[in-house]
Amino acid sequence: MDSNDLKHLLTAIQTGDLSVDEGLDRLRRLPFEDVGEAMIDHHRALRQGVPEVVLGESKTAEQIATIVQHMVAHGDNVLVTRISSDKAEFLSNNYPNGEHDPLAKTFILQQKPFDDLGLGKILIICAGTSDLPVAREAANTARMFNNLVEELVDVGVAGIHRLLAHTDALLEATVIIVVAGMEGALPSVVGGLVDVPVIAVPTSVGYGASFNGIAALLGMLNSCAGGITVVNIDNGFGAAFAATRINRKKTA
Amino acid sequence: MDSNDLKHLLTAIQTGDLSVDEGLDRLRRLPFEDVGEAMIDHHRALRQGVPEVVLGESKTAEQIATIVQHMVAHGDNVLVTRISSDKAEFLSNNYPNGEHDPLAKTFILQQKPFDDLGLGKILIICAGTSDLPVAREAANTARMFNNLVEELVDVGVAGIHRLLAHTDALLEATVIIVVAGMEGALPSVVGGLVDVPVIAVPTSVGYGASFNGIAALLGMLNSCAGGITVVNIDNGFGAAFAATRINRKKTA
Amino acid sequence: MDSNDLKHLLTAIQTGDLSVDEGLDRLRRLPFEDVGEAMIDHHRALRQGVPEVVLGESKTAEQIATIVQHMVAHGDNVLVTRISSDKAEFLSNNYPNGEHDPLAKTFILQQKPFDDLGLGKILIICAGTSDLPVAREAANTARMFNNLVEELVDVGVAGIHRLLAHTDALLEATVIIVVAGMEGALPSVVGGLVDVPVIAVPTSVGYGASFNGIAALLGMLNSCAGGITVVNIDNGFGAAFAATRINRKKTA
Amino acid sequence: MDSNDLKHLLTAIQTGDLSVDEGLDRLRRLPFEDVGEAMIDHHRALRQGVPEVVLGESKTAEQIATIVQHMVAHGDNVLVTRISSDKAEFLSNNYPNGEHDPLAKTFILQQKPFDDLGLGKILIICAGTSDLPVAREAANTARMFNNLVEELVDVGVAGIHRLLAHTDALLEATVIIVVAGMEGALPSVVGGLVDVPVIAVPTSVGYGASFNGIAALLGMLNSCAGGITVVNIDNGFGAAFAATRINRKKTA
Amino acid sequence: MDSNDLKHLLTAIQTGDLSVDEGLDRLRRLPFEDVGEAMIDHHRALRQGVPEVVLGESKTAEQIATIVQHMVAHGDNVLVTRISSDKAEFLSNNYPNGEHDPLAKTFILQQKPFDDLGLGKILIICAGTSDLPVAREAANTARMFNNLVEELVDVGVAGIHRLLAHTDALLEATVIIVVAGMEGALPSVVGGLVDVPVIAVPTSVGYGASFNGIAALLGMLNSCAGGITVVNIDNGFGAAFAATRINRKKTA
Amino acid sequence: MDSNDLKHLLTAIQTGDLSVDEGLDRLRRLPFEDVGEAMIDHHRALRQGVPEVVLGESKTAEQIATIVQHMVAHGDNVLVTRISSDKAEFLSNNYPNGEHDPLAKTFILQQKPFDDLGLGKILIICAGTSDLPVAREAANTARMFNNLVEELVDVGVAGIHRLLAHTDALLEATVIIVVAGMEGALPSVVGGLVDVPVIAVPTSVGYGASFNGIAALLGMLNSCAGGITVVNIDNGFGAAFAATRINRKKTA
Amino acid sequence: MDSNDLKHLLTAIQTGDLSVDEGLDRLRRLPFEDVGEAMIDHHRALRQGVPEVVLGESKTAEQIATIVQHMVAHGDNVLVTRISSDKAEFLSNNYPNGEHDPLAKTFILQQKPFDDLGLGKILIICAGTSDLPVAREAANTARMFNNLVEELVDVGVAGIHRLLAHTDALLEATVIIVVAGMEGALPSVVGGLVDVPVIAVPTSVGYGASFNGIAALLGMLNSCAGGITVVNIDNGFGAAFAATRINRKKTA
Amino acid sequence: MDSNDLKHLLTAIQTGDLSVDEGLDRLRRLPFEDVGEAMIDHHRALRQGVPEVVLGESKTAEQIATIVQHMVAHGDNVLVTRISSDKAEFLSNNYPNGEHDPLAKTFILQQKPFDDLGLGKILIICAGTSDLPVAREAANTARMFNNLVEELVDVGVAGIHRLLAHTDALLEATVIIVVAGMEGALPSVVGGLVDVPVIAVPTSVGYGASFNGIAALLGMLNSCAGGITVVNIDNGFGAAFAATRINRKKTA
Repeated sequence: MDSNDLKHLLTAIQTGDLSVDEGLDRLRRLPFEDVGEAMIDHHRALRQGVPEVVLGESKTAEQIATIVQHMVAHGDNVLVTRISSDKAEFLSNNYPNGEHDPLAKTFILQQKPFDDLGLGKILIICAGTSDLPVAREAANTARMFNNLVEELVDVGVAGIHRLLAHTDALLEATVIIVVAGMEGALPSVVGGLVDVPVIAVPTSVGYGASFNGIAALLGMLNSCAGGITVVNIDNGFGAAFAATRINRKKTA
Repeated sequence: MDSNDLKHLLTAIQTGDLSVDEGLDRLRRLPFEDVGEAMIDHHRALRQGVPEVVLGESKTAEQIATIVQHMVAHGDNVLVTRISSDKAEFLSNNYPNGEHDPLAKTFILQQKPFDDLGLGKILIICAGTSDLPVAREAANTARMFNNLVEELVDVGVAGIHRLLAHTDALLEATVIIVVAGMEGALPSVVGGLVDVPVIAVPTSVGYGASFNGIAALLGMLNSCAGGITVVNIDNGFGAAFAATRINRKKTA
Repeated sequence: MDSNDLKHLLTAIQTGDLSVDEGLDRLRRLPFEDVGEAMIDHHRALRQGVPEVVLGESKTAEQIATIVQHMVAHGDNVLVTRISSDKAEFLSNNYPNGEHDPLAKTFILQQKPFDDLGLGKILIICAGTSDLPVAREAANTARMFNNLVEELVDVGVAGIHRLLAHTDALLEATVIIVVAGMEGALPSVVGGLVDVPVIAVPTSVGYGASFNGIAALLGMLNSCAGGITVVNIDNGFGAAFAATRINRKKTA
Repeated sequence: MDSNDLKHLLTAIQTGDLSVDEGLDRLRRLPFEDVGEAMIDHHRALRQGVPEVVLGESKTAEQIATIVQHMVAHGDNVLVTRISSDKAEFLSNNYPNGEHDPLAKTFILQQKPFDDLGLGKILIICAGTSDLPVAREAANTARMFNNLVEELVDVGVAGIHRLLAHTDALLEATVIIVVAGMEGALPSVVGGLVDVPVIAVPTSVGYGASFNGIAALLGMLNSCAGGITVVNIDNGFGAAFAATRINRKKTA
Repeated sequence: MDSNDLKHLLTAIQTGDLSVDEGLDRLRRLPFEDVGEAMIDHHRALRQGVPEVVLGESKTAEQIATIVQHMVAHGDNVLVTRISSDKAEFLSNNYPNGEHDPLAKTFILQQKPFDDLGLGKILIICAGTSDLPVAREAANTARMFNNLVEELVDVGVAGIHRLLAHTDALLEATVIIVVAGMEGALPSVVGGLVDVPVIAVPTSVGYGASFNGIAALLGMLNSCAGGITVVNIDNGFGAAFAATRINRKKTA
Repeated sequence: MDSNDLKHLLTAIQTGDLSVDEGLDRLRRLPFEDVGEAMIDHHRALRQGVPEVVLGESKTAEQIATIVQHMVAHGDNVLVTRISSDKAEFLSNNYPNGEHDPLAKTFILQQKPFDDLGLGKILIICAGTSDLPVAREAANTARMFNNLVEELVDVGVAGIHRLLAHTDALLEATVIIVVAGMEGALPSVVGGLVDVPVIAVPTSVGYGASFNGIAALLGMLNSCAGGITVVNIDNGFGAAFAATRINRKKTA
Repeated sequence: MDSNDLKHLLTAIQTGDLSVDEGLDRLRRLPFEDVGEAMIDHHRALRQGVPEVVLGESKTAEQIATIVQHMVAHGDNVLVTRISSDKAEFLSNNYPNGEHDPLAKTFILQQKPFDDLGLGKILIICAGTSDLPVAREAANTARMFNNLVEELVDVGVAGIHRLLAHTDALLEATVIIVVAGMEGALPSVVGGLVDVPVIAVPTSVGYGASFNGIAALLGMLNSCAGGITVVNIDNGFGAAFAATRINRKKTA
Repeated sequence: MDSNDLKHLLTAIQTGDLSVDEGLDRLRRLPFEDVGEAMIDHHRALRQGVPEVVLGESKTAEQIATIVQHMVAHGDNVLVTRISSDKAEFLSNNYPNGEHDPLAKTFILQQKPFDDLGLGKILIICAGTSDLPVAREAANTARMFNNLVEELVDVGVAGIHRLLAHTDALLEATVIIVVAGMEGALPSVVGGLVDVPVIAVPTSVGYGASFNGIAALLGMLNSCAGGITVVNIDNGFGAAFAATRINRKKTA
């Protein structure tokens, strides 16, 4: 029930086409049915420049294809995340224009041109090459959400000069996503060098006492640098989603 | 905004005292304000035989006294949980009729007589004497929620015959709360002997590898007996609350 | 030794066919042998409307088939849980009437009609589509235990309006099972909206810091809403079993 | 060594007052000494509207007073966090104009007027009254960082209608900080209702299996809602710092 | 109901003083009431040389005194464990003959002479002086259970020669209790040197990553030496109890 | 260097065939070389009735076969544990007399008759059928170590009457091994019924919050019953080894 | 930019070929670009006797081959670690002179002769045969870093005489690496016998409560012996790298 | 028994003053008694420049004083660690020349002059002022072990330029101890800048998800930089001890 429906209802009462009691009865259930209407309409705002997203991980290739088929009908861009190579191959057969990134495990179907809807640029910094899949998922997601994206790779804390060599990129970003596994120390260093929001993404890269990303996660939560917030282990998508909200131009 | 207010609003539209647009505007915010109205009115049903409850743990004696003062005005029974002895003394000075149970850490102010609103009896079984504070919190809470309550104490699994000696109590209960620390094995044994719901309450009693109740909690979650559900460590209040919902006579 | 045997023994003593000492000797071991007789006879009561259940997980297809064969002989309905597709196929060949639900991993052999033995309806709410296997195991189990069951799917807390749209189902249930992974927040919201017992089932759905269901489990144990109890991770069967005990009509 | 010094050095070489080799020698150590100069000057930008901050926790009252004394000399506003009441009393004796908030454990010394340097308003939502100290630390910090701040208290998920009643506040914020203990579910619900960045702050409020905030932390990291990032347990200051970076007007 | 009672019952049936039905009714509840009778009579055997034991930890001085008073009446020796100094002082006032060991936190009231009921000697090895309280609790307990006891102190693995110097003691023991904190390595070394049962007791001695005894506990559970079993952290009493069962002369 | 060698050395000094300095030099390294000689000779005593044991887990079939070949030469019985079916098949081809138990994952090559070297019988109690592999490993090991062994299966705590039906077995054992997964409660019940040493073996059987045996392990470590000691998760071999040491006849 | 470039820049200013402002501009970014130049030149020193290292774990055979190809061009020795057998086979086809150690999972391509650049010998002690892969990785790495290496295998704490038999090796080493799984007790014993640095490497060898090396890691961190430091679980490479730094001859 | 005793024994055999059998008997126990003699004599070497050390933590002031009294008699320097202020005051009364460092919790009694026995300098880097107690314990210990020590304070990773400003100190050290709490990232940065051994000391500084130093510990164990080893949380003493072994001049 949207505003128009509601207006018709009230008008019907005004005109006497509907009794007060009948109106009351229909309104009684309004709270539950219409929360979405009033508040969730930010979805409409958000949808400017937001793709349809499918989490491919726990779905079969056929299920994904069916969902994508519905999405394609709306003309929106489509982003499938966490899709394995065999499922991606199945999709590619149906959508030869689709782009499969095996590293990021994303499948992208572009139906309308990308746009730059951000305040500036999202910088994605990746500590080591093993962290690349997560960083690339973030990068692909951020681009699909119509942000300008720049990527820095292999600038871990054990060779701090490699990071310091990228002054320009660091100083130009509106928001920075830092992807790191093992000890997860890079966000602390970056956070101390810049004054924009830093989103830290721990990865499950490492072995032994890295405990599949727990060491990196704890390191990032305990960062001694300010302005850092953290997302779940390997959650490149979530980091890009949050970065998009930060980077999005406010329409006042 | 309750049903009467809503009826007035619609009538005003019907009579022309309110324009459709004005009515629309006032209804726009209804979903958020009125969810409580429609659904939370189970509180009214529940309130038959339900006391006012104050969690005393993180409040000062003065704060508790102020809250209790407001409650007293409504004529309801009042239950304060997790109240230390010094805070209870402060309350007792103001409400000499109140009953302080230092073991259960409860303070009870009875303003109207208890009632039996349950289908039957709630049986509370306590593994060891050290678990008594949690069991007693559950018992006092359940009584304040107008249930018949029976208690069994010191019937741990290491002396299984002590439990087996209480056949009658086991077979007569409508729902059983089992309170145990250390290895938390008692609910499994009880669950295998009866056919009513069993709510297991792990306690922080123990030392070393009991990890303040984690051992008991895990034991209960992994029970090989059927029909057992679990609440948080030391949560005697929560167990009594859930047991009340199970035991409450359905008015359908 | 059942009551008849015991009566014969006493009669033999009365008639002198058995000496007091011989009787004493035979009774000495009674406690251990006969606990089952006296107390476990709730099994008889319970068995009205209860299927035979086989946990298929750690058994070979052949072992399961052998056990099922014995059960079939009694004419009872048979429920096999946690059965893989290949084992289910093996069973299907032997019992073509059996129903295999690959999502719930259940195999059901219905030999007599279902019955409604409950006080009302068990509502099973499922947060996301990935939680469906656990919710479906709960649903299939609850139906086999002769309960009326209703299912709600994909009503997670991040889209709270989807849940609020189902007022009727929420208000009609006798007991509610809430199945959720990731942060496991749904039971708290549901528990705050209804006044019936809520059984929370954490699932292992999630990644990274979900730790295979620990995050959801802890979330549910710490719920700030009342009336919630919890079962083990992914334990749809256990939740349905407990819900059955709550929902079962009392025969006084 | 700042830009002026560097210019003098080069000029000295140009004029022959300094040989090339002497200049080379002095420049050799530049990288280590001057990183701060080039990059850390964002501190200057940041310092517009940023107070001096002292973490009071592990310092004696005397140590804090000494540090504050130095800060006062610069004329900046001063914020002391995590200060106990006795230390605050000591400070108050020296700085009677200072404001001590015993709930937030902050001590604030305002030497110049607050300013609004943000894009909009920071909304701080607090699940329960026990979470107030952390929320208040965030609020006081955010105000000292020259942001407009609005606070919502006691709107936990178990009474979802209380949150839904605050549509205006939710829709007007530029960034939202959600403070919650126990199961930490509130950020998921909020994140699903708005389209701005949400910073989740787990608190150590709870008992038993809340494990001093771990349950809430895990719940927030695993949130099924998008756009949510997380800070350390009880880290109200850190959340306000990150929110400030998000809210700060870009000068491009 | 003991054997005599049972005999009277059967005799009454034989003589016709009791009908078969009445007898049946009285026997129906036998299983639960009489388990203790048949099986728990090992208590009688055990009680030869076994003291009365009170766990002093969670009881007030007055409660302990009351319990001890009852025990004294039976003429048995009395052992109170985990008793603080102030409670022990209270007891000492009432029982000046009692012996308080502040290190072991035991209070012993000897009313009849100790006896040697063991197959041989229990050797208690203590890794460091900080582990002494646990070792001493074990020693005092073992002696009260009428075992010969020998103690070795400060023979940790970092100075392996100190252990090797005690060949005689190692080779003469019937069962060895090894008490160690920190890395808990001593049982592995001892287990490789002897051929008698070794009971390992982890202590909470240590700091940092010792996690209050978890490191020692895990070390002992993973011992590469054979014949080692483990009890709970700091459980000197439990180790002595188990060692007593091993050392006790079998009467066949 | 054994006692004979040492005697020869001293005699050579006595006779002047060896100078004091030469003797001193040869003795200098004695401590390290001869520890085994003096103390490890318990191996000789132990070897009466002890098989050669090979841990098959991390070795290839070929490696195992080579080791077994050496052992066979000594005429001893051979026990291979944790051997997979394919490796066992390889061994069976070489040693057709060998007995492979696929459930226990043991391979046994008997070259001389078993003997009864124990004080009495080792009773192995197994909570559920899923725990059987561990219980069977313990049973096979104990028999190979020349103990009499009796096994009880499927007597979990949720059906306590099944355990109580086996009075004779419980009362006749010299030492009892209790194997249980899930909540690991069985040892507590058994420990309360008997007066002999009880060795508890947690198994990794279970799911969700059983954490591969941690729940059972913690339950057993925290047992409220006396006389219980614990071995590592799934360590049936270790339990049997320790039980052998307890059961072994002392030769004084 | 290296020292020569910097000299040219200053000379150009001196000669007037470059204005002071232009020079200033080019120097402004120096800190970030030249940290490496000044400090990281220890790489040059280190490179004397240091191989090129490739972590083979997360790379494809083709990627490794490409990297190796570049390295080979510099004439350095090449060490690939954590390489699986199939990837090693691929490499062997390209570099028939390469040496694959399947146990250590290393692939070594020697292009110039090894050298002894150490102060003395690195001793690598391995507790059990299952720990050999980690010990061998350490040994191969240490040799490639031009150290003399000696290995001791199968000298676990449960047979302490086996370790004590190797006095010479223990006393001759400059630094000792101790590799152990399960309870990880060996470094404590070794650390108490020698006076050189001991690097402890926990391995993931074990089962049950060894938790993939956590038990060994905690044991080593809590060692009661002095002079012991620890590296990550299974990190043989890291231990050898640290040992090389300790053993390297100082050039003053 | 030392070498002289052994020589006397052999001479007595040679001269006939002792029979071969008597000699054999006395030598039989040699291995256990004399391991210390042969191997532990590194203590003598070590004792050059090594103080007597007392761990003050779990001892009473009186116990410490007694131990110190014995040590003083030998004329050695004395180091008491982890000593509280009240115990230190007690000691100071007895030894007015002693130096109490309340920050480091050390008490030092210097009886003979310090000496420089190291290859070079030990650099101790401290991330934040809150980590100072641990760093100072390491510094005081290292100095008492006769090493040159230099300290850097407050050079955390969030302000990387502060560390880079200390090139000289970094490049001159023989071994570096890095003390850091919170995320523990500093050792990774340092390890990447130098080529000497780096010992990382995690501190319990932090709150929330720092878990009393676990976050820092895991960060350090997972460092992506080479040459880093780790000691227990807050173990400044242990780090200094290990650093001393690394720094000690080899006498070859």
